[in-house]
Amino acid sequence: MSCAVAIIGVGLVGKQVVNQLSSPALGRLFNIISLSNSKHTVSIAPSASAVDGATLLSLLPASSAPLPTSSTHPGTSYSPANPAELIKKLAADSRENKTHTILVDCTSDLSVTELYPLAISSGLSVVTPNKKGFSSGDALWTQILEAQSAPGAGLVYLEATVGAGLPIISTVRDLVKTGDEVIKVEGVLSGTLSYIFNEFSKPGGSGAAGPKFSEIVKIAKENGYTEPHPADDLSGSDVARKLTILSRIISANPSSLPALPAFPEGYASLSTETLIPSALANVASGDEFVTKLADHDAEFDKLRADAEKEDKVLRYVGVIDRKAGLVKCALEKYPSTHPFASSLSGSDNIIAFHTARYSQRPLIVQGAGAGADVTAMGVVADVIKVAERNGVRVHL
Amino acid sequence: MSCAVAIIGVGLVGKQVVNQLSSPALGRLFNIISLSNSKHTVSIAPSASAVDGATLLSLLPASSAPLPTSSTHPGTSYSPANPAELIKKLAADSRENKTHTILVDCTSDLSVTELYPLAISSGLSVVTPNKKGFSSGDALWTQILEAQSAPGAGLVYLEATVGAGLPIISTVRDLVKTGDEVIKVEGVLSGTLSYIFNEFSKPGGSGAAGPKFSEIVKIAKENGYTEPHPADDLSGSDVARKLTILSRIISANPSSLPALPAFPEGYASLSTETLIPSALANVASGDEFVTKLADHDAEFDKLRADAEKEDKVLRYVGVIDRKAGLVKCALEKYPSTHPFASSLSGSDNIIAFHTARYSQRPLIVQGAGAGADVTAMGVVADVIKVAERNGVRVHL
Repeated sequence: MSCAVAIIGVGLVGKQVVNQLSSPALGRLFNIISLSNSKHTVSIAPSASAVDGATLLSLLPASSAPLPTSSTHPGTSYSPANPAELIKKLAADSRENKTHTILVDCTSDLSVTELYPLAISSGLSVVTPNKKGFSSGDALWTQILEAQSAPGAGLVYLEATVGAGLPIISTVRDLVKTGDEVIKVEGVLSGTLSYIFNEFSKPGGSGAAGPKFSEIVKIAKENGYTEPHPADDLSGSDVARKLTILSRIISANPSSLPALPAFPEGYASLSTETLIPSALANVASGDEFVTKLADHDAEFDKLRADAEKEDKVLRYVGVIDRKAGLVKCALEKYPSTHPFASSLSGSDNIIAFHTARYSQRPLIVQGAGAGADVTAMGVVADVIKVAERNGVRVHL
Repeated sequence: MSCAVAIIGVGLVGKQVVNQLSSPALGRLFNIISLSNSKHTVSIAPSASAVDGATLLSLLPASSAPLPTSSTHPGTSYSPANPAELIKKLAADSRENKTHTILVDCTSDLSVTELYPLAISSGLSVVTPNKKGFSSGDALWTQILEAQSAPGAGLVYLEATVGAGLPIISTVRDLVKTGDEVIKVEGVLSGTLSYIFNEFSKPGGSGAAGPKFSEIVKIAKENGYTEPHPADDLSGSDVARKLTILSRIISANPSSLPALPAFPEGYASLSTETLIPSALANVASGDEFVTKLADHDAEFDKLRADAEKEDKVLRYVGVIDRKAGLVKCALEKYPSTHPFASSLSGSDNIIAFHTARYSQRPLIVQGAGAGADVTAMGVVADVIKVAERNGVRVHL
């Protein structure tokens, strides 16, 4: 028994997914049958798929290159990228070959996620680190859920959308499926904002001698820890998307606690504190943004000094508080002895689940929550789980 | 589609498993078809299984009661407890009814675990928090692994053997299956020893004014945190069993690192530091043991004072260090700022995975690692996963 895998989006994460899935241990269980970027798709016959990752990746021309007119590798063929057509072809081939096919979406395109209901209802499973399908409007989320419940439908696995390879989505699912009551979820869910505040606001405090906010953002940008435009991190929208996903999973299960707010427009409906000074809201260039951010260092200094007066640190967190009926992303103060202060460093994520069963002290998961290899790991672990639900046995 | 569940061992954990599996959400997907204690088995027709947990539990007479001569509830029948016969009957019924049957072992009996190979090769799946089958001699472990690889064999899921409901086994499996290299695993894996040392040795130190070791053990015993005889906790054997399981799972996967030591006799082959003073090795009574432990407080005071001189705390940990080719359970010193010192409290477990991918900082899981409800949650989450691998769809 083996499983077919089609990968859309072959950037940093997609490449690692190909490498992990074509390892000696997994390669014999999975056939990578197509790779797509924004311009091209290469289809690969299962017999030609049993090669190493680098060879597989070499089969897909760069999106800037023209579509090849003839195949250079036995068992391959080329076509212009068209995700909707690809899904129809994969579904037809799957039915004909009686194999299960998993569509792995490693793009960050909303348009690809809008095809998930089609893919799932056609019998394909979807595994993805792409948050957009689950954190945008309610209509798409509902369509994805409903598509799964039709007979013969595929499955959706989305571990890597929150915390990359960390067991966060699987943990919240296990909690709610076994009937635990999730009371509060609180987490540092952005690796970028974790790094920035771990450097800016340390337990014990550094007072006025501490580093300037704009200097830390500048270093983070130079090291590639931020998006090209740091405002995309400072807006909080990445955290808001992750919190929307967690909140929707929790809300979709029965509970005696008050209902959480609905998010008709997804993350955009969520209460999200922005760290972008209003005067800089329209600065188009990332470099200019960082330079001008220095004019606002005094504002951040004051926030830090206020926290230090209470022996606290600043952390940008996502919070789901069922008793308060509240879901929010905000800059909060935590005591120096709190795990978010004392045990967090670098760009680690940390999340604490307070539940009926984990009531005295929360269940905590912590570790790197971004990076191509750990994100790919989250994707590949999900691919294995979907395959196992379709009869594949993976050693141990 | 529904799944049949047979439960052996209906103590604190088994009762919670029955309650969680017969909740409104899960009850329609799972039929509890038998309950056994050490004396009796009640078999329950699927049609009679759809009742609440309390009613189901009332169907099994206490082990001290005689075997009922007639059935008091429609669709039930009684027989003397005989796990080997039960497995044969479950397998035959499963084949006849074309359902998948999951054997849940909530005993702590080695003899039941010795039947896992029979159960698995007969097509039943096994879910259990019972560590003995996986931490005893190599022969049984190998038989269990081999039984799984036969055609038509069942599966074994053992999340709750380490850390109860915490995602520890599933995390180590995801790491190794996706090809990560586990370099070091380090954890506080006994809730009892976590509590004792969190109270005895605090970050910052308390010097000679700190509580006495024997006093803390006494309080722990009075609160039910220890086994009836605290030496069963202080021997380190519970930690050694958990570490054997983790080590075997890691060893069963390919790696370029040096092989870990083999454990031909399971946990008994593992390097385990005992905290039982040698003079007290043969004290048969738990109460007498605690009283006499006070004669040894000075020894523990000295260990604590030595740690405090280095601004460290004492923690009883399990360590798998692949570079050093070492697996051990020992009392170790950790800096006051280490997560095992600063963020650990109560009887929480904590485990840190250092891997090729999580190399700068480890992946950490923390929370309650003992207790009937969280242990049952680990079991029920596994039951759901086995059912999902056999075609059952559980909401979300």
